[in-house]
Amino acid sequence: MKLATLPDRTPDGRLHVVSRDLARSAPASGVTTLQALMENWSALAPTLEAQYAALNAGQGSGFDPGNALSPLPRAWQWLDGSAFESHGELMQQVFKLDPVPKGRPLMYQGLSDRFLAATADVPLPSEDDGIDFEGEFGIICDAVPMGTATPAARAHIRLLVQINDWSLRTIAPIEMRTGFGWVQAKPACAMAPVAVTPDELGPDWRDARVDLPLLVDLNGTRFGAANGYHMAYGFDELIAHAARTRHLVAGTVIGSGTVSNANYREVGSSCIAERRGIELLDHGAPATPYMAFGDRVRMDCRDRSGASVFGVIDQRVVSAAPSRSGQV
Amino acid sequence: MKLATLPDRTPDGRLHVVSRDLARSAPASGVTTLQALMENWSALAPTLEAQYAALNAGQGSGFDPGNALSPLPRAWQWLDGSAFESHGELMQQVFKLDPVPKGRPLMYQGLSDRFLAATADVPLPSEDDGIDFEGEFGIICDAVPMGTATPAARAHIRLLVQINDWSLRTIAPIEMRTGFGWVQAKPACAMAPVAVTPDELGPDWRDARVDLPLLVDLNGTRFGAANGYHMAYGFDELIAHAARTRHLVAGTVIGSGTVSNANYREVGSSCIAERRGIELLDHGAPATPYMAFGDRVRMDCRDRSGASVFGVIDQRVVSAAPSRSGQV
Repeated sequence: MKLATLPDRTPDGRLHVVSRDLARSAPASGVTTLQALMENWSALAPTLEAQYAALNAGQGSGFDPGNALSPLPRAWQWLDGSAFESHGELMQQVFKLDPVPKGRPLMYQGLSDRFLAATADVPLPSEDDGIDFEGEFGIICDAVPMGTATPAARAHIRLLVQINDWSLRTIAPIEMRTGFGWVQAKPACAMAPVAVTPDELGPDWRDARVDLPLLVDLNGTRFGAANGYHMAYGFDELIAHAARTRHLVAGTVIGSGTVSNANYREVGSSCIAERRGIELLDHGAPATPYMAFGDRVRMDCRDRSGASVFGVIDQRVVSAAPSRSGQV
Repeated sequence: MKLATLPDRTPDGRLHVVSRDLARSAPASGVTTLQALMENWSALAPTLEAQYAALNAGQGSGFDPGNALSPLPRAWQWLDGSAFESHGELMQQVFKLDPVPKGRPLMYQGLSDRFLAATADVPLPSEDDGIDFEGEFGIICDAVPMGTATPAARAHIRLLVQINDWSLRTIAPIEMRTGFGWVQAKPACAMAPVAVTPDELGPDWRDARVDLPLLVDLNGTRFGAANGYHMAYGFDELIAHAARTRHLVAGTVIGSGTVSNANYREVGSSCIAERRGIELLDHGAPATPYMAFGDRVRMDCRDRSGASVFGVIDQRVVSAAPSRSGQV
């Protein structure tokens, strides 16, 4: 099943069921928002699955992913992992950080009061902040009781999503050295327009990981095509880690961290900082600049047939309006 | 004006206006939840101020702070500062951390999908985690545009609150060393039952700081009475820091960090870890244990007349039910 949220002048938008080929959609029956669905998944999902079958049989009206909001326009909780070890090792090179202790997942809590639409401009205050994208996969879970262990955690993974975790690299290492994690370095993320149930991936949902490449293009040129499978911890383990001392509220979003593979010289990267790390290793200095206002990043994940799974993230970085505008 | 939220079987509860002496209350007119008030403060607050005057003149019915939820039972964003430098320095001693860089506020994003009621039991999984409280002051702001500077930030401080930031000290330094900040080490916080407008403090709201002591008792014995004024950065500066690269959603809660004073040997501490740091300095080893199941902490802030400003936090730590209970 595939789901999207279309604008309806409310903060949470209107949940729609979307056909597998992303061509048609219909308003979800029996539930108006994705948050409400997450709070009562077992009772509400069967009706939506029936709608999904009808859409795939040709019912529904035209769906324009470019009109969609984030599937979850806001969430009560966003916990982002960093589960790709080759990414972490390159970041240490770039930022001259101490090696991160191994043996437990890395995770921070980030801004969740808004997730930008997949094609929304990204207003940021300064090019001097080292503007960078991070291509990720993520999951949305229903309510997870405190203390849930990994085997039981997997059943709480109701939806898969694709995320662009916007990052400001000039600020990131300063905040990391405090030990407090990121606030300024992590502005609002974006989500691809469509969330999908794990069964949509067939055998490519494997060990609670997405075994497909994430295709990343910067200003129209292929930047990376790393595979989502190579997580040191699966999403089930990330849930169990997060739920060790807290109940996870329904609709919690958990991210994989930047998709990265050990053969990064072949497959490329899902963020600029990582490429700069490779350049540092190979040539003694980074060469690829961070993003300038007007630059675009595009992210897409295609299944074995070549069809887009989540729809496309395609965003342009723009200068934030001065605060006087009152735009909040 | 003073505000509280009473249970009504909805997640956000029912907003009430409370008399200055916390004796009487009435359902808020024109707005049902504190979140909704924060989203439209200027339009809605005047009616509530009129209700407040009537309550102080003897109208309304009896208010029981022990029946109240957190004023904001859940929030879209909780950003906790650490603005008391004597606290930071003692924490470095306890956890053998590198000195934190100075010159910018410390802040992390924490769990905000639930704030425990002031008298709710606190279920936690293990006494081995180093269970500790942190007595703090906090603010709730309305929507703050990205890039808002300190002078303009002050007007966004609509409410003051008193917070118990539950902390797990065995996990905290492990998470700090990753640079990612805290997830497991910071379970849900609690809030005192009443939120107050800054004018309630009169001259004791000074430089965007609460110039009153926070009285902390552990199992019935006075533990600390540190004053809230000695923040290296006022709440206006904390807002500006947070809003550097993000719009702050209405209803964002920002915390002071553990209230701590340089003369900690005289005034005591607002968390156990800090006292352990003092013991380490004075005697070479910490002596005060972290909390055991059944232990209670009480926190109160009294004005110059001796009256409780926010009502009392009085919580007992209990063993979390096993996850099988399905309690979320």
